Amino acid sequence: MEFTAQQIAAFLNGTLEGNGEVVVTDVSKIESGLPGTLTFLANPKYTRFVYTTKASVILVNDDFVAERKIENTLIRVPNAYESLALLLNIVQNGYNNKVGIHPQAFVSESAQVGKDVYIGPYAVVSDNAVVADGAKIYPHTFIDSHAQVGENSVLYSGVKLFRNCTVGKNCIIHGNTVIGSDGFGFVQDNAEAYQKIPQVGNVIIEDEVEIGSNCCIDRATMGSTIIRKGVKMDNLVQIAHNVEIGENSAVVAQVGISGSTKIGKYCVLGGQVGLVGHIEIADHVKIGAQAGVNNSIKEEGAILQGSPAFKIRDFQKSQVLLRNLPKLNKEILELRKEIEKLKKGLA
Amino acid sequence: MEFTAQQIAAFLNGTLEGNGEVVVTDVSKIESGLPGTLTFLANPKYTRFVYTTKASVILVNDDFVAERKIENTLIRVPNAYESLALLLNIVQNGYNNKVGIHPQAFVSESAQVGKDVYIGPYAVVSDNAVVADGAKIYPHTFIDSHAQVGENSVLYSGVKLFRNCTVGKNCIIHGNTVIGSDGFGFVQDNAEAYQKIPQVGNVIIEDEVEIGSNCCIDRATMGSTIIRKGVKMDNLVQIAHNVEIGENSAVVAQVGISGSTKIGKYCVLGGQVGLVGHIEIADHVKIGAQAGVNNSIKEEGAILQGSPAFKIRDFQKSQVLLRNLPKLNKEILELRKEIEKLKKGLA
Amino acid sequence: MEFTAQQIAAFLNGTLEGNGEVVVTDVSKIESGLPGTLTFLANPKYTRFVYTTKASVILVNDDFVAERKIENTLIRVPNAYESLALLLNIVQNGYNNKVGIHPQAFVSESAQVGKDVYIGPYAVVSDNAVVADGAKIYPHTFIDSHAQVGENSVLYSGVKLFRNCTVGKNCIIHGNTVIGSDGFGFVQDNAEAYQKIPQVGNVIIEDEVEIGSNCCIDRATMGSTIIRKGVKMDNLVQIAHNVEIGENSAVVAQVGISGSTKIGKYCVLGGQVGLVGHIEIADHVKIGAQAGVNNSIKEEGAILQGSPAFKIRDFQKSQVLLRNLPKLNKEILELRKEIEKLKKGLA
Repeated sequence: MEFTAQQIAAFLNGTLEGNGEVVVTDVSKIESGLPGTLTFLANPKYTRFVYTTKASVILVNDDFVAERKIENTLIRVPNAYESLALLLNIVQNGYNNKVGIHPQAFVSESAQVGKDVYIGPYAVVSDNAVVADGAKIYPHTFIDSHAQVGENSVLYSGVKLFRNCTVGKNCIIHGNTVIGSDGFGFVQDNAEAYQKIPQVGNVIIEDEVEIGSNCCIDRATMGSTIIRKGVKMDNLVQIAHNVEIGENSAVVAQVGISGSTKIGKYCVLGGQVGLVGHIEIADHVKIGAQAGVNNSIKEEGAILQGSPAFKIRDFQKSQVLLRNLPKLNKEILELRKEIEKLKKGLA
Repeated sequence: MEFTAQQIAAFLNGTLEGNGEVVVTDVSKIESGLPGTLTFLANPKYTRFVYTTKASVILVNDDFVAERKIENTLIRVPNAYESLALLLNIVQNGYNNKVGIHPQAFVSESAQVGKDVYIGPYAVVSDNAVVADGAKIYPHTFIDSHAQVGENSVLYSGVKLFRNCTVGKNCIIHGNTVIGSDGFGFVQDNAEAYQKIPQVGNVIIEDEVEIGSNCCIDRATMGSTIIRKGVKMDNLVQIAHNVEIGENSAVVAQVGISGSTKIGKYCVLGGQVGLVGHIEIADHVKIGAQAGVNNSIKEEGAILQGSPAFKIRDFQKSQVLLRNLPKLNKEILELRKEIEKLKKGLA
Repeated sequence: MEFTAQQIAAFLNGTLEGNGEVVVTDVSKIESGLPGTLTFLANPKYTRFVYTTKASVILVNDDFVAERKIENTLIRVPNAYESLALLLNIVQNGYNNKVGIHPQAFVSESAQVGKDVYIGPYAVVSDNAVVADGAKIYPHTFIDSHAQVGENSVLYSGVKLFRNCTVGKNCIIHGNTVIGSDGFGFVQDNAEAYQKIPQVGNVIIEDEVEIGSNCCIDRATMGSTIIRKGVKMDNLVQIAHNVEIGENSAVVAQVGISGSTKIGKYCVLGGQVGLVGHIEIADHVKIGAQAGVNNSIKEEGAILQGSPAFKIRDFQKSQVLLRNLPKLNKEILELRKEIEKLKKGLA
């Protein structure tokens, strides 16, 4: 990004105060703003920083009244926060405007490549793979044979999309995530050695899904591991074979979901949560960080915590009682003493 | 895979019923079978789907008796499940039949490369590295100098096998796993800053080992970090320096094993388990998901759970008592009341 | 490494006993030493191995007196352990002495590349990126546009350093670590679908930082995610957007730190620890493995454990009481009996 204050004011339909020629190349927080950046004042708690920030340009609300002279350039808009969000989206999109197939990319002759795609240096698009219009395949990304990337999806550097797996439209997959490695399926033979169960299913990622970096989504033994529309997944998440995650659920970092478990819609799984295999979680369920879930949850909207996980109210009660154990212990000792006294009284 | 029903029936020595010309290119579950796929009926619970599945070809047991007309092609075999397993193995092997060194791979002149290997585009095989007969090195995989890959082993895309580390025969290493990064070893100097302890050992992966995606296996400080024959490891597992994992043990996703800890043979470590360093785990030990183990386990076949982990029976007892804490608390209050009454009675 | 015993003795200013022509190419532990390697005897507990080790050369202290004939070559030095450390550092540095830009690397014309750098095959250095003097960029490493790598820093194979992010001097980043993926920031719209909050900040890694393999460090929403000087991080660590980790802190494997949390200086976070977002941890705090921290810790040097975490003394007390629950339970039953007896006595 590189704009003059003038250009930004014009774009936002705002009112410029001060030097319109000043150039900004980045965005900053008002309390730590640097010259050459744009910042904003939305929360009145931060008003004092408007007089000290070194940011070159400040977005403020129309009704902002300065108590003393401000050297920085101001742009007045009806809602500074919304204007900022608008600008940030443009900035973010601006970072992702690469187009063209790099001469040092490898694209198989049998691959289908759409219009306006980006395929970076050393990316590999294998036989019979599909890269739809507007998709972006960053350097070192591997699209295996018969894998498909939908329109306008972005696969960042180092993503591995294995054989037959599909990514829908408008998805974002962050660096070094692996989609379609074999599920962890073995049977023990008579000598207790593990024999591999072939994993011949695939992974289906639906539209509008975002997946963090260094995640693992295993292919199904048969059929599909499915990540439904609108799911958002953080970094280092483990999704085993034949798992299904319902629409618009959020999965925080380092969660592990075991084989064939089915998560409902609009669920939230906190960081480092673990779920055993072959269970079902109802819609709108929230599971607290580090919880361990080993049973199906049938109640919609339930909130759970703990390992093993139970309902948050019971969990909190048990936590309080746990902390009270020393008191409980003391109370029992005292009861014992009183009883001994009573016994003597009777004797 | 692409076979006619006829070809599959001939291969399995089965009896064909219906159209032998129909082509299948994939395998599916009977309840969600799609046209162009092969499915199977082994479990009688699924019999009703035989009349509704859209799979083109169904493997059934010889003694299967249809209650009404089936349009799909049937292949009768003595054991439908075993025939399927046979086919799946062929399918899986068919996916992995690549041979040849891609012109856009980099192979050092001093590397030793065997017969019938596959080295994909943008793979790197460094100085003095060894890639034995039949090994498969996928795109973006890095074989560092003096590293060795044994016969018929498969290193999927993005695997990094660092200097001096060795992978045995018939191993499978999934995408983006790192073998031979430095162990986490430091000493604090007088200013409490950490100084690196050189990590000059290596990693030895023995034969028939499978390792998931995005795992980390650190090289030993001196000597070797060792993964013994037949070990199976899921995704996102952390193996620190100088760890040893015994033959035929299974390590589920997101487990972390700290430095110099030694795991016995035929052990199972559940998902997200953590083990401290410098302990030993006996053979056939099973550790439940999310457990934290901070002491050696000397009893063969012990089953542990919890963080800190203790034997599963004690763990379960303590869980029951934990849930009983509110009742216990109430009982103590009542005892107190009774004693007060008794005291009044005595007075 | 490849040295004769003679060369090592001369370098260490030590006294040679035995064959000076013998060549060593590696270092080994005395109890498992192999021919062609160098080992050492520092701890008297290991003295017996000096007579059985197959290592070709043994470093011993000047005052070592052999009780019987030793065939291996000895090198006597004032302090065998310090001499070994010196040698190991040289060995380690020897592994990392690559220089030159490989013809199959891609380096943008607008990138700034210093002197004596190494850029391996299929590495990518993008537009306006900076690779300072002496830095080493291994194969398949991606330096995105406007990203910077400081002097003498090493980015191992598969590291992804995204747009605008910076790595200081003398850093080591291990394989497949991702720096600068988007922070996990979304708002739910009226239909409860998640809308992405643009992540336009960056990541700053200061000098002398070491980061393990397969880690994820997300870019800030605005501003910077900051890893301060001297921080050492193990494998598979998750650092969310806008986190700050203070100087010389150590972060063990599989830790997860949520957004905007600030860790002090000289802290130690044990393996698999999780921290919620928006909290502050004081300097010199130690957090035990698998703990879950959901509140700020203001006391310098505090030691915490458990999930939820509390001070280690309280944690240990509660653990003891937990294990005592069955006894407590029994004691209450007995008190009940005694009271019933007393009541009868009164009646």
